[in-house]
Amino acid sequence: MSSSEGKVYGKREVTKYADGEQKTFSDTVAVEVPITIKVNGEEFVTVVCSPAYIEDMVVGYLASEGVIDSFRMVQSIRYDQTNGYVHVSLSRELSQLHQLLQGKRYITSCCGMSRQGFIFASDSKTTKTMKSRNVHLTDQECFKLMNELQSEAHVFKQTGGVHNAALATKDGIVLMRMDIGRHNALDKLYGYCLRNGISLTDKVMLFSGRLSSEILLKVAKIGCEIVLSKSAPTDRALMIAEELEITAVGFIRAQSMNVYTCSERIYQKS
Amino acid sequence: MSSSEGKVYGKREVTKYADGEQKTFSDTVAVEVPITIKVNGEEFVTVVCSPAYIEDMVVGYLASEGVIDSFRMVQSIRYDQTNGYVHVSLSRELSQLHQLLQGKRYITSCCGMSRQGFIFASDSKTTKTMKSRNVHLTDQECFKLMNELQSEAHVFKQTGGVHNAALATKDGIVLMRMDIGRHNALDKLYGYCLRNGISLTDKVMLFSGRLSSEILLKVAKIGCEIVLSKSAPTDRALMIAEELEITAVGFIRAQSMNVYTCSERIYQKS
Repeated sequence: MSSSEGKVYGKREVTKYADGEQKTFSDTVAVEVPITIKVNGEEFVTVVCSPAYIEDMVVGYLASEGVIDSFRMVQSIRYDQTNGYVHVSLSRELSQLHQLLQGKRYITSCCGMSRQGFIFASDSKTTKTMKSRNVHLTDQECFKLMNELQSEAHVFKQTGGVHNAALATKDGIVLMRMDIGRHNALDKLYGYCLRNGISLTDKVMLFSGRLSSEILLKVAKIGCEIVLSKSAPTDRALMIAEELEITAVGFIRAQSMNVYTCSERIYQKS
Repeated sequence: MSSSEGKVYGKREVTKYADGEQKTFSDTVAVEVPITIKVNGEEFVTVVCSPAYIEDMVVGYLASEGVIDSFRMVQSIRYDQTNGYVHVSLSRELSQLHQLLQGKRYITSCCGMSRQGFIFASDSKTTKTMKSRNVHLTDQECFKLMNELQSEAHVFKQTGGVHNAALATKDGIVLMRMDIGRHNALDKLYGYCLRNGISLTDKVMLFSGRLSSEILLKVAKIGCEIVLSKSAPTDRALMIAEELEITAVGFIRAQSMNVYTCSERIYQKS
């Protein structure tokens, strides 16, 4: 049922101007495709993404939106690559879905969020507060994990145009995904774990992009205690992290990082 | 009617780990607020953004979505900062609006897009093909403009968490806006120009972020012939640029840049 095929980057002719010279060559750019999710035969939503691990992304998306409570609710899923559709058959009735989505029209600020803190009721239903303190990392482990994410980020190196996300333990990266869309990379991780029964409670989320409120909500839905990012957080993301007891670490660069919330999960080895 | 007030960044306590040391200090982070647009008394959409130039953003957003054809259609606009609402009164009937938006439910991939190439009919109505060749830039002018954008990007320097966009002529930046959301920065520029009758056809769009298909569509709606970016484009963005005859330039760094489409607007001074 898994589909990892699909070219995530393509070739494009480009004219480069550098140091007073000009030359034309073939460059690598990230591919961006629209995917329309059809649930029980009805168009549900269109997402634009990198064309790999599409079915995982759809399962992760439906779970984080609260449309499915578990993968068992998915009776079938089929990616029609030619037409850009993913056909999902759910055991849930369509009328329930409509009720669920009523009043949920919104746009994201793109790199802002689409789920608005706790404006929408479904968020408070699907996010989990991380009461446990199962996962602890030293500063050196945080540096090492971010370094591993960046080393593994082949596609980014080729195109400069994608976000990378990974699930990891303190020993290293377990699963990594890339996407032109920030949330999609997280949905692809989440969906893969749901479909394959992989535990998420002992994992750390690694992310190349900024920590917006939407990313924090997604991390809470996935159920990770710690999120490590190379980039900056927003104030609203940190409010959510605090409320949901997630450890948010930003600006991880070589031997430096900022711990913003729930710092008790991070320690320095003496 | 203009409102530029609102704190776009706030203070936050952070524990910094660096070179084996640990210290706690007060750091600057970007503020992220949800804004709900009410059109003729009815909730229309919620956007998350940096809290400045909100009314401009709403006008730019409504124009780029094809909800208004000109600023004359806006009978009144009022930002209720306390409750996060922008009340817009339009001369257009609500029933027409509903028709316009029917079947338009989508999400963005965040840094992907929400308007899906030309999947939605409203895009083909609101985007303009740039048949004219009014604007030309030398490579040195492109470098200079991007350098100016980066020098002016004060908030980014403080928080690392916002996107910058500006309208410019070859002589320099005319108007600059920042936002945690990529599109919002562009909507704020567009709205300001619509409200103040500023011509857009002779302007160049400068952008700090990646050129996704959605950004290209937005540039086409605003009506700029050239878009200059510090970052990478996606393949779909370049297809749109080609179709709409927009000159897309990416990876502008010091003395180097890539021209992807309609290269006849860029030249080297001999």
